[in-house]
Amino acid sequence: MAMCLATRASSGAATTLHYKWVVENIFWSPDGQQNMVMAINGGFPGPNITAKVGDTVEVELSNNLNTEGVVIHWHGIRQFTTPWYDGTASVSQCVINPGQTFLYKFKVDKAGTYFYHGHYGMQREAGLYGSLIVEEGDQGQKEPFQYDGEFSLLLSDWWHQTVYQQEVGLSSDPFQWINEPQSLLINGRGQYNCSLASRYNSSAALPECSLGGGEQWAPNVLKVLPNKTYRLRIASTTSLASLNLAIGGHNVTVVEADGNYVQPFSTTDVDIYSGETYSVLFTTNQNPDENYWISVGVRGRLPQTPQALALVNYLPNHASKFPTSPPPVTPQWDDYNRSKAFSNRIQGLEGTTPPPPADYDRRIMLLNTQNTIDGLTVWAINNVSLSFPPTPYLGALKYGIKAAFDQTPPPDTFPDCRYDIMSPPANPNATTGNAIYTLDFNSTVDVILQNANTLQPNDSEIHPWHMHGHNFWVLGYGDGKFQRGDEKLFEKAGRRPPLKNTAVIFPFGWTALRFVADNPGAWPFHCHIEPHLHMGMGVVIAEGVEFLADVPRETLSCGLTGMMFSGNGEEGHN
Amino acid sequence: MAMCLATRASSGAATTLHYKWVVENIFWSPDGQQNMVMAINGGFPGPNITAKVGDTVEVELSNNLNTEGVVIHWHGIRQFTTPWYDGTASVSQCVINPGQTFLYKFKVDKAGTYFYHGHYGMQREAGLYGSLIVEEGDQGQKEPFQYDGEFSLLLSDWWHQTVYQQEVGLSSDPFQWINEPQSLLINGRGQYNCSLASRYNSSAALPECSLGGGEQWAPNVLKVLPNKTYRLRIASTTSLASLNLAIGGHNVTVVEADGNYVQPFSTTDVDIYSGETYSVLFTTNQNPDENYWISVGVRGRLPQTPQALALVNYLPNHASKFPTSPPPVTPQWDDYNRSKAFSNRIQGLEGTTPPPPADYDRRIMLLNTQNTIDGLTVWAINNVSLSFPPTPYLGALKYGIKAAFDQTPPPDTFPDCRYDIMSPPANPNATTGNAIYTLDFNSTVDVILQNANTLQPNDSEIHPWHMHGHNFWVLGYGDGKFQRGDEKLFEKAGRRPPLKNTAVIFPFGWTALRFVADNPGAWPFHCHIEPHLHMGMGVVIAEGVEFLADVPRETLSCGLTGMMFSGNGEEGHN
Repeated sequence: MAMCLATRASSGAATTLHYKWVVENIFWSPDGQQNMVMAINGGFPGPNITAKVGDTVEVELSNNLNTEGVVIHWHGIRQFTTPWYDGTASVSQCVINPGQTFLYKFKVDKAGTYFYHGHYGMQREAGLYGSLIVEEGDQGQKEPFQYDGEFSLLLSDWWHQTVYQQEVGLSSDPFQWINEPQSLLINGRGQYNCSLASRYNSSAALPECSLGGGEQWAPNVLKVLPNKTYRLRIASTTSLASLNLAIGGHNVTVVEADGNYVQPFSTTDVDIYSGETYSVLFTTNQNPDENYWISVGVRGRLPQTPQALALVNYLPNHASKFPTSPPPVTPQWDDYNRSKAFSNRIQGLEGTTPPPPADYDRRIMLLNTQNTIDGLTVWAINNVSLSFPPTPYLGALKYGIKAAFDQTPPPDTFPDCRYDIMSPPANPNATTGNAIYTLDFNSTVDVILQNANTLQPNDSEIHPWHMHGHNFWVLGYGDGKFQRGDEKLFEKAGRRPPLKNTAVIFPFGWTALRFVADNPGAWPFHCHIEPHLHMGMGVVIAEGVEFLADVPRETLSCGLTGMMFSGNGEEGHN
Repeated sequence: MAMCLATRASSGAATTLHYKWVVENIFWSPDGQQNMVMAINGGFPGPNITAKVGDTVEVELSNNLNTEGVVIHWHGIRQFTTPWYDGTASVSQCVINPGQTFLYKFKVDKAGTYFYHGHYGMQREAGLYGSLIVEEGDQGQKEPFQYDGEFSLLLSDWWHQTVYQQEVGLSSDPFQWINEPQSLLINGRGQYNCSLASRYNSSAALPECSLGGGEQWAPNVLKVLPNKTYRLRIASTTSLASLNLAIGGHNVTVVEADGNYVQPFSTTDVDIYSGETYSVLFTTNQNPDENYWISVGVRGRLPQTPQALALVNYLPNHASKFPTSPPPVTPQWDDYNRSKAFSNRIQGLEGTTPPPPADYDRRIMLLNTQNTIDGLTVWAINNVSLSFPPTPYLGALKYGIKAAFDQTPPPDTFPDCRYDIMSPPANPNATTGNAIYTLDFNSTVDVILQNANTLQPNDSEIHPWHMHGHNFWVLGYGDGKFQRGDEKLFEKAGRRPPLKNTAVIFPFGWTALRFVADNPGAWPFHCHIEPHLHMGMGVVIAEGVEFLADVPRETLSCGLTGMMFSGNGEEGHN
């Protein structure tokens, strides 16, 4: 992984980490095949950021792309009082144009495992991502567990077709889906058209990889000592794949999810949906003469992509010592009961996770459907497919530029309460829209994410929904259509709802969330599968913008806000 | 070719043509292989514009790309009094961001054959181009020749690798050249991996194309009647290839070059460099029972691309009647004496082309060299490789924003007057720069474009230089290094220098141009080979900006001009 040297400037307790990054496309071999990658400072993935609670992170981002704008979103960071640095095009800021530099500056106020990524078009899938770790500060809260060392595993999926071509396919009639990824990557490293594990299988379809260890696509090696406890910080920035991670011969204990401590539990493997992060502990209590595989495989879609592998190297064994045991087998992709059981084991940790407010002020039902508009395939929420406007919402809201987006609020519930979620939509037509949900400041909001059948009979997909600017409590998961009375399912015996920023809806199911609208700003809430968001699968919420200081002008240089300072607002076009 | 219906609004003699265009990437098969193409209104090439002298052309351009800005340059249109609508990123305007619409509005004041194309990154090569024809008006000047019908042939070259990948290769160490095109296209149509002409050659390497006629890559058919005279309007928007066009069995008479009438002359074939346009007349005086091939082949580089073909279909023959004679053979690619002889035949037409001013006020020598900067291969002019700034020059000049670009003028002559143009540079290092040549308004300027050896021994390439905003007189071409006294070569017996906007420099040679700096604005002057410009092969000139009205604000929304109206100029970054 590319190294990054930050300038660290401390004054008293406050530390500022200052990074200078240049974004550009480069050639790289994430999986042994050279492809174009959207890189930072000439490497892939982007540099690691490791900060402490209370630090200020400054990233001076220069766009060295040729014709594309760029932004970077700090996934999981709430950006309290700095919503303009959330890094989402059309929402928090105007994109940074080629040749320009933009300064992100925000405080990291909560320890946890996070990551960052492009949030414009499909630049995340193009390779624009990296790790962001926030450690507990020297004062203040202590972590409710102990370990001897840690590793960061940033998981992603990789395609050989450029995202430019994929975007055209998604907007074509007939629709051209991006299909399954060619490779899964661990810290940007995977293997295509060869396997590290074929020697366990004499009838393996792929030849064994020939690797010296210095290749860009050589697997990660985690060097450990026997009888120690290690923390794995796992983050999934996949564009599509739902994943499962396991370590051969070792159980793991889940201790953190999405930057929130959870009630520890032991498991053989961990499900990770795109946008989620987990910390797990594992103890090196196995035969110290052996090395072991970490395997990452696909769940929730019929896998057409081989497992990604990394090596747990018990020192002083050499890293080239091949594990005796094959990599763990990924659970059956469509064993959703197993997936649901895992998700239901995630509970808030008492003492660190407060319980949710007892009741809600507003409930918003969000029906997830696949639809068609003018012959194109889209995703829609309550029959509206989100189309991002050229003027960012935050500036438009702050300065009352009503022409920037549709002022009629989107629906708070299904277009038809009798909607049959078990069948393809009776009327597949949806509309395009860019209206937003305006929430009362500090109100408690429930969201019921309702899954449904796609345009194909007997088909419903996984959607991991990610909310910017907030953590939400996951009240519960259910099957079928959410019904009056299903609230009782929220209160399973003794279950404490976890706080998360990403939660999955299972096929033909629903997921209930609760959050407090306490962060002034405008925030996307969307399916974290990148082509799904590109096809309109998201909403935007806003609250308390009136309590914000002036929005920095360098975030407002486009669209109608770009015309604002010239007193010439009528000249903008939508 | 895609059709375009303009709204035509006349008031008295003045007509306004109004077009609504949407730019987006689509899948298309320019040569039988489906690829991504940057298209306008869903077709490729872009719509034809046909206007009359005195018309106002309005193009309402919407950017429907996902993450890229866009601009369109109206190649050959002088944009007198409207330099902000010249459509060059970093020079005349800020790019149009995704989701935004920009109105180009300009008068076409000179009859001729023109075209339009993207002028940002390598969006021209990506497919963003089309024809622009200006006919003589109903009053005023009459064309100095007659014909019965006309056809437009827009010539281009086509690659299967995306321009995004090509751009990365050009900026990589080791350098990755784009190599020769896969296909040549006539009006966006070519044939890859098959040949229309293989039946003439029993040992042909390519199989015969199987075409029904309705394919996107089916050749153009020019339907003609016997014993008539037709005008072919030929424009080359190639990214790389120098071309030669011939019609089987027919001579042609050259009558127009780059929108200027020329002394007519008859020839078997026409050389066309990228950025040039020609009109030729041909008479259908051959055996009317036959059809004939138009062939377009590569000159000036070792050809690795098959000829492009179109069909001259003598009615009432069926278009499927295969020509008895094979397509004309393109002259030997490196027969530069033949090329120079052709270029020297282009003379201004008395009565339409004034002679150049007798003397110049300023002479600028521009040495064209290939260099390296920080391990990257570049092209440099007087040792400076042009790097476009994020703030467009025009607004920066008009409003005196000196921080927008380097204020030290670039050199008016070679870095070393003893420079040996016949050898690779003794010191291959150059510098990157963005300073401009500021010309006295209405002064007469001579430019000597001096070619040189590249980084490879015994190698010098063709470079067609195109000037925005002006026509120049081509005073002459010479071999070797321009010497004191070579001015006498300008005055060959009886030769009247032609007016053009694009002129080639031959390998190891020089080309002398003269123009009057009479068009207030900032104007690129550059090699029209797109990867060469991308690698820095150009300069920017400016004159008379003080005489301009206010620059339209919608062209100023980026960089330091974007900050200007907020009184916050210090916040911009370069």
